[in-house]
Amino acid sequence: MTFPSEVIAMRRDLHSFPETAFLEYRTASIVAARLTELGYSVRVGPEIMCMDDVRGLPSQEDIHSAQNAALANGAAPCWLEKMPDGQTAVCGEIKRGAGPVLALRFDMDALPVHESASGNHRPVVDGFASECEGRMHACGHDGHTAIGLAVAEKLSHPNAEWKGTLRLIFQPAEEGGRGAQPVVSSGLLDDVDIFLATHVGCQLPSGQIALTADGFLWAEKWNVTFTGQAAHAAMCPEEGRNALLAAAIAIPGLYALPRDGQSDTRINVGLLQAGRTRNVIADHAYLELELRASTHEGLSRLTASARRTLQGAALTQGVEATIDVYGTAISAASDPEIMERLRDAVCFTKGGSIVQSWPIGGGDDATFMMQRVQDRGGKAGYCLFGSDITAPHHASLFDFDETVLQTAVMVLSRFVELSS
Amino acid sequence: MTFPSEVIAMRRDLHSFPETAFLEYRTASIVAARLTELGYSVRVGPEIMCMDDVRGLPSQEDIHSAQNAALANGAAPCWLEKMPDGQTAVCGEIKRGAGPVLALRFDMDALPVHESASGNHRPVVDGFASECEGRMHACGHDGHTAIGLAVAEKLSHPNAEWKGTLRLIFQPAEEGGRGAQPVVSSGLLDDVDIFLATHVGCQLPSGQIALTADGFLWAEKWNVTFTGQAAHAAMCPEEGRNALLAAAIAIPGLYALPRDGQSDTRINVGLLQAGRTRNVIADHAYLELELRASTHEGLSRLTASARRTLQGAALTQGVEATIDVYGTAISAASDPEIMERLRDAVCFTKGGSIVQSWPIGGGDDATFMMQRVQDRGGKAGYCLFGSDITAPHHASLFDFDETVLQTAVMVLSRFVELSS
Amino acid sequence: MTFPSEVIAMRRDLHSFPETAFLEYRTASIVAARLTELGYSVRVGPEIMCMDDVRGLPSQEDIHSAQNAALANGAAPCWLEKMPDGQTAVCGEIKRGAGPVLALRFDMDALPVHESASGNHRPVVDGFASECEGRMHACGHDGHTAIGLAVAEKLSHPNAEWKGTLRLIFQPAEEGGRGAQPVVSSGLLDDVDIFLATHVGCQLPSGQIALTADGFLWAEKWNVTFTGQAAHAAMCPEEGRNALLAAAIAIPGLYALPRDGQSDTRINVGLLQAGRTRNVIADHAYLELELRASTHEGLSRLTASARRTLQGAALTQGVEATIDVYGTAISAASDPEIMERLRDAVCFTKGGSIVQSWPIGGGDDATFMMQRVQDRGGKAGYCLFGSDITAPHHASLFDFDETVLQTAVMVLSRFVELSS
Amino acid sequence: MTFPSEVIAMRRDLHSFPETAFLEYRTASIVAARLTELGYSVRVGPEIMCMDDVRGLPSQEDIHSAQNAALANGAAPCWLEKMPDGQTAVCGEIKRGAGPVLALRFDMDALPVHESASGNHRPVVDGFASECEGRMHACGHDGHTAIGLAVAEKLSHPNAEWKGTLRLIFQPAEEGGRGAQPVVSSGLLDDVDIFLATHVGCQLPSGQIALTADGFLWAEKWNVTFTGQAAHAAMCPEEGRNALLAAAIAIPGLYALPRDGQSDTRINVGLLQAGRTRNVIADHAYLELELRASTHEGLSRLTASARRTLQGAALTQGVEATIDVYGTAISAASDPEIMERLRDAVCFTKGGSIVQSWPIGGGDDATFMMQRVQDRGGKAGYCLFGSDITAPHHASLFDFDETVLQTAVMVLSRFVELSS
Repeated sequence: MTFPSEVIAMRRDLHSFPETAFLEYRTASIVAARLTELGYSVRVGPEIMCMDDVRGLPSQEDIHSAQNAALANGAAPCWLEKMPDGQTAVCGEIKRGAGPVLALRFDMDALPVHESASGNHRPVVDGFASECEGRMHACGHDGHTAIGLAVAEKLSHPNAEWKGTLRLIFQPAEEGGRGAQPVVSSGLLDDVDIFLATHVGCQLPSGQIALTADGFLWAEKWNVTFTGQAAHAAMCPEEGRNALLAAAIAIPGLYALPRDGQSDTRINVGLLQAGRTRNVIADHAYLELELRASTHEGLSRLTASARRTLQGAALTQGVEATIDVYGTAISAASDPEIMERLRDAVCFTKGGSIVQSWPIGGGDDATFMMQRVQDRGGKAGYCLFGSDITAPHHASLFDFDETVLQTAVMVLSRFVELSS
Repeated sequence: MTFPSEVIAMRRDLHSFPETAFLEYRTASIVAARLTELGYSVRVGPEIMCMDDVRGLPSQEDIHSAQNAALANGAAPCWLEKMPDGQTAVCGEIKRGAGPVLALRFDMDALPVHESASGNHRPVVDGFASECEGRMHACGHDGHTAIGLAVAEKLSHPNAEWKGTLRLIFQPAEEGGRGAQPVVSSGLLDDVDIFLATHVGCQLPSGQIALTADGFLWAEKWNVTFTGQAAHAAMCPEEGRNALLAAAIAIPGLYALPRDGQSDTRINVGLLQAGRTRNVIADHAYLELELRASTHEGLSRLTASARRTLQGAALTQGVEATIDVYGTAISAASDPEIMERLRDAVCFTKGGSIVQSWPIGGGDDATFMMQRVQDRGGKAGYCLFGSDITAPHHASLFDFDETVLQTAVMVLSRFVELSS
Repeated sequence: MTFPSEVIAMRRDLHSFPETAFLEYRTASIVAARLTELGYSVRVGPEIMCMDDVRGLPSQEDIHSAQNAALANGAAPCWLEKMPDGQTAVCGEIKRGAGPVLALRFDMDALPVHESASGNHRPVVDGFASECEGRMHACGHDGHTAIGLAVAEKLSHPNAEWKGTLRLIFQPAEEGGRGAQPVVSSGLLDDVDIFLATHVGCQLPSGQIALTADGFLWAEKWNVTFTGQAAHAAMCPEEGRNALLAAAIAIPGLYALPRDGQSDTRINVGLLQAGRTRNVIADHAYLELELRASTHEGLSRLTASARRTLQGAALTQGVEATIDVYGTAISAASDPEIMERLRDAVCFTKGGSIVQSWPIGGGDDATFMMQRVQDRGGKAGYCLFGSDITAPHHASLFDFDETVLQTAVMVLSRFVELSS
Repeated sequence: MTFPSEVIAMRRDLHSFPETAFLEYRTASIVAARLTELGYSVRVGPEIMCMDDVRGLPSQEDIHSAQNAALANGAAPCWLEKMPDGQTAVCGEIKRGAGPVLALRFDMDALPVHESASGNHRPVVDGFASECEGRMHACGHDGHTAIGLAVAEKLSHPNAEWKGTLRLIFQPAEEGGRGAQPVVSSGLLDDVDIFLATHVGCQLPSGQIALTADGFLWAEKWNVTFTGQAAHAAMCPEEGRNALLAAAIAIPGLYALPRDGQSDTRINVGLLQAGRTRNVIADHAYLELELRASTHEGLSRLTASARRTLQGAALTQGVEATIDVYGTAISAASDPEIMERLRDAVCFTKGGSIVQSWPIGGGDDATFMMQRVQDRGGKAGYCLFGSDITAPHHASLFDFDETVLQTAVMVLSRFVELSS
């Protein structure tokens, strides 16, 4: 590998073809092919995912469409066949004699965000902007996957100084927090001794590395439906029961739920679809929302208030509200041992200045993996690689300082060596 | 024609295949074929529609899809070819020597409403419910078209007692008020001496006939877009500008616009789509709404207030609101001469008890045709045929008493005879 | 009486000292004194009011304060003594042999509105603006009382051409609709054969007289209380249950209640008081609102929806809502006999051009008197005297064209003569 | 002093006569008299307050009324005379030779909260509940004042081991954050070497003492007025511009302002008064609100968004919004030297278990005093004395564990001794 040009090239290639949750067919195929080429034993799809409790799988139609697009953009058919039904996780493994089981997690999915076409946006200027209308790598997972593949290359080299079992996990569907759980349920983490997940950016400046992320929030993700009664909006509006209006009344009420003196909270209604046509009182509204809190108790208070708000808004219009809990997220803490070893890896590689802890600012379902490892007696951690960003994560002008790629590859590789 | 079974059968056939605005390909083909068969000279599509100012045409994709579905359900290819680009109007004409130009208007389009699957809903019980998911004849236009074809048959009979020119106009896209104007713009109404449009139901009980409808409302139909700024909903919600929340704040504000002491008003937001995904602050929201008032001044006041409300809601979130005036509707009054002739026709046919005037309750863009006829010196009217209904117009349980079909055919045919 | 200067002077004097509902002590004293002077037998207070069901009486403190102010501004103590507890109705009666019982109703109360201090406002220019901060004759009742006294003078003249019993009723508390019912309950209307109430203005231009008012609305007046839980707004906002926020959520919901296809409706929340201090979550909110509809059924629908909206808003915040029905209003129709006699009176006096009917636009609890008279076999009516106004009724710039005063006196006097 | 019965008795006496901001006449008189009695040189009112920038002073009427009530309940006239215009601060000073200037701050004001009358509420059970309808010591300042007087007694004793200048500052109007600034402006803090302020409760359990409070929030307090146009709510609602509705739309919008990823925020609208009477569109609304954030930047973002929300809500109704910035609060941090000395004082007195830092949860304008001391080269601190509470601060059932009183007296006295 010519460094850093190749890892940058890989990141840019992935950036051009963003794929959203459970539809990462091209990305996963590239990962699987590359890991195989490097000598890893590769497992994909049903071998390492148990989908029983997964919510929000895309439709078969969307899956087929994603598979076809992946094929048209260079994915290998042999890998696609092994990833039915949105099961796009990939795991590469090498054993080098006795020693601990060492696992790193990388995530691959993009977001349903329109990438900016601005002339100030480097992916536009340098020609690697999204070629997929309405989808964008706006969170840096393109970088994560590229880092993972470069780490794979580096540690597969004969003179890499580690022993034991190395397991590189490429996870789908981190956005929405749905991809980690099926991997955990498959048992892939059960024998892991050392686990590390990572993220770039997160408002941490270039040149800094946080030994742990804090501020993982507890979360629930809800899909809410209001069902009312249609009626002619001019002839007999009084006969209708207005689901759209109920939703509109609920929404400011949700954002207005009380701040909590003992817990940091977040609320967002990210999607709303209601009604059909202009001159009919809307009999249907559908919302997707998430509620987060820094403590379990805070989340309990928040969800109780949110239920009340939704039911109250429904009552104002005489409509029915149904709440479907679509997903959850949990918090997790890095083990001190992991943080110490990371510190050493950063020092050894001169990777940058060290920050003890930095807020993740959102969530990452790698916490389900961390919790599993810790529950089974292993040690787990989550670190952040600082990288100046051009816009907030998830914004259409998001881009990051690519020098982080090389840094992360060096530090993570050394971390594995120091941990074995 | 075996009466009334054939007109009922035709209505039920049309009910099974509801087609929404500008996509009435199967319906229009059936109408054109039947009129031709009865000896009418038939003009369709571009011959009688000038689409320059039409808003809200379906996409080419939707048009092709509707054409294919129409062909699959028995539409004749020869007629479809003559109706490109959603131009589905049909006009049948017969001349019988000197005499007035007599025109009747029938509308053909259905609504984007899910038909009830209830065991109490007669279309379900008798097997003629919508076969098209998400579309329904929930306003009676299936009946109107069936009436029009039966009138066509009756007046084409050699012993029908009329002379002059008879013009039967089958209009698309009455819902949304977009289909009449292109027909008017084509000049089809310019030489009409006597014009009559009609509606069934409208809360007028079975057995009653209203010589005119009143309460046509002035209206504007708006498409509104809010554009904000996306951001990660947990990491940096303060960086976002929330278009979904702006829309939610606007909506109760719109419904809450003041009642008007001098004008009856109506407001409805019938469609709302906002945001993309749960954990991103929504940067986009789209609304379809309509504003109606019984006077032109009332509508002016209402639209001014609604603009203020939308801009104010946008300001609360620092987002941009753009308002696209998608359509308009006007009021119109029946000429007394038309009402007198209708009275005579009802009496002659023993068609039912007469009501001088009855509120239309909504609108009908036949008013554009009425205005054109009246502006050019002709006489125009709009009458209602009472028919008990099972649910409000536009509701998913809507159905009407089919005995109105025969009544309307008899009265309208006699009206034409008396008018010539 | 020097005409019209005296009636104008009386109106202006009353305008300077506006007194709100059940506090019309100065006005009532002036009326009682003047009627006595003219030879009428005068009954006041408890003699003609049965207060059992009256709601919203002012506090004893406010009553004492109003009595003191009335005394300070020229009210006669002898009359005040006879009007305890806000019982400020006055009735003057003269009998002239056998004949019908003829009753006219005039209302005396002002509004809690700040009168404009604008240099364009005639009461300011001509020096008769309100001397009572926060109170104003903004509805014309000052004119009504002045008209009543001038009619009293005119009909007390020996050559006035009538016989029977003449009863001139000066009612308190028309605003809020609370003053008529106690007068009705006293039995004062039970033997009335001919009853007429009247209003000036109401958007009817100067020079026009409407033989009846239409559009009296059915109404309910509610006082609503939300009760929540206080908490420190910064330390533990999550412990609070926010009554102020519940009220704020309810209010747009109330104004947004659906327009009714079969009934003209009105909604207003005219007063809201909530919370105590900035840094405490408000545990209390109080609203005064009114709901009106042109039909009894429409009002039933509206009140049902409003209850749902208030309870739903309460539920969103986990607070309690209690609804107190504070008052009601009913509709009423003028008898044709009354309208005919009015027509004759207008023609005889050349009082102006006649309009058959004109919308009252609001309400008047004279309808309770009309209903009582009609229930007991008498005939009742309500007419409007046109008068150009400078601002809507109840606005701080309201003023009316005083030429209406003379017209009303002439027409009403002649109406009595023609009715006897 | 018989300990702890006297300090408890003093607290209970003060609890019975709660006085709100700038009206603490009885409390201040008692404090001044007692300090004098103990040998302190006492300054009050204008000597130690510079009122130029104070906002929200009570009206002269309220001040007179408070003074009269204070006199009626035992205040000494000689002290009242020295506290004109709400200037109720009191400072007692003793000099004991050379040494540092040592200052402690105690606050005296109560809240406009109704005290619970519940049989479970100890002030009710033990007969010291508020005798002043609508006012309550619901934050513990009664305890603070009692502690201050007991400390005064203890340190005035000849064998108290300190030297230098001791200055005990009894501040008015801590609630609302208006009382500290005028004391600072008078120069009273300019020469202070060691400053300590304190609070009881704050969710810190009995038996614990926090060496510093954290989480002081930056804050702005706003008074907002909406001005619209009145109109008759039934006759011509369309003529009105509804200030009450604008306020109602603004309020959920304010609570719904985005959580901030970089700053903890708080929002409360604690008071709302709008409209006058039921059947008039409200032309006036008045709100009192506060905005808080843990960082200066967070507060800037919050106030910018809140302005936009208020102006946007005003625009929806075509009304005017004016924002008056009524008060501000700043953050502050304790100096480590103060914390160390406190630790020693706690250990020496066996005062309880030590907590390094505990969130204040709200604010305290003692931060203005702390900042002044620190700006001038002195050292300042803020500590919390744990005390189990029966309900959140500011709630009507608030009460605290009185054992804290003795603990605080002991620790604060020892702190002074250790600091000199």
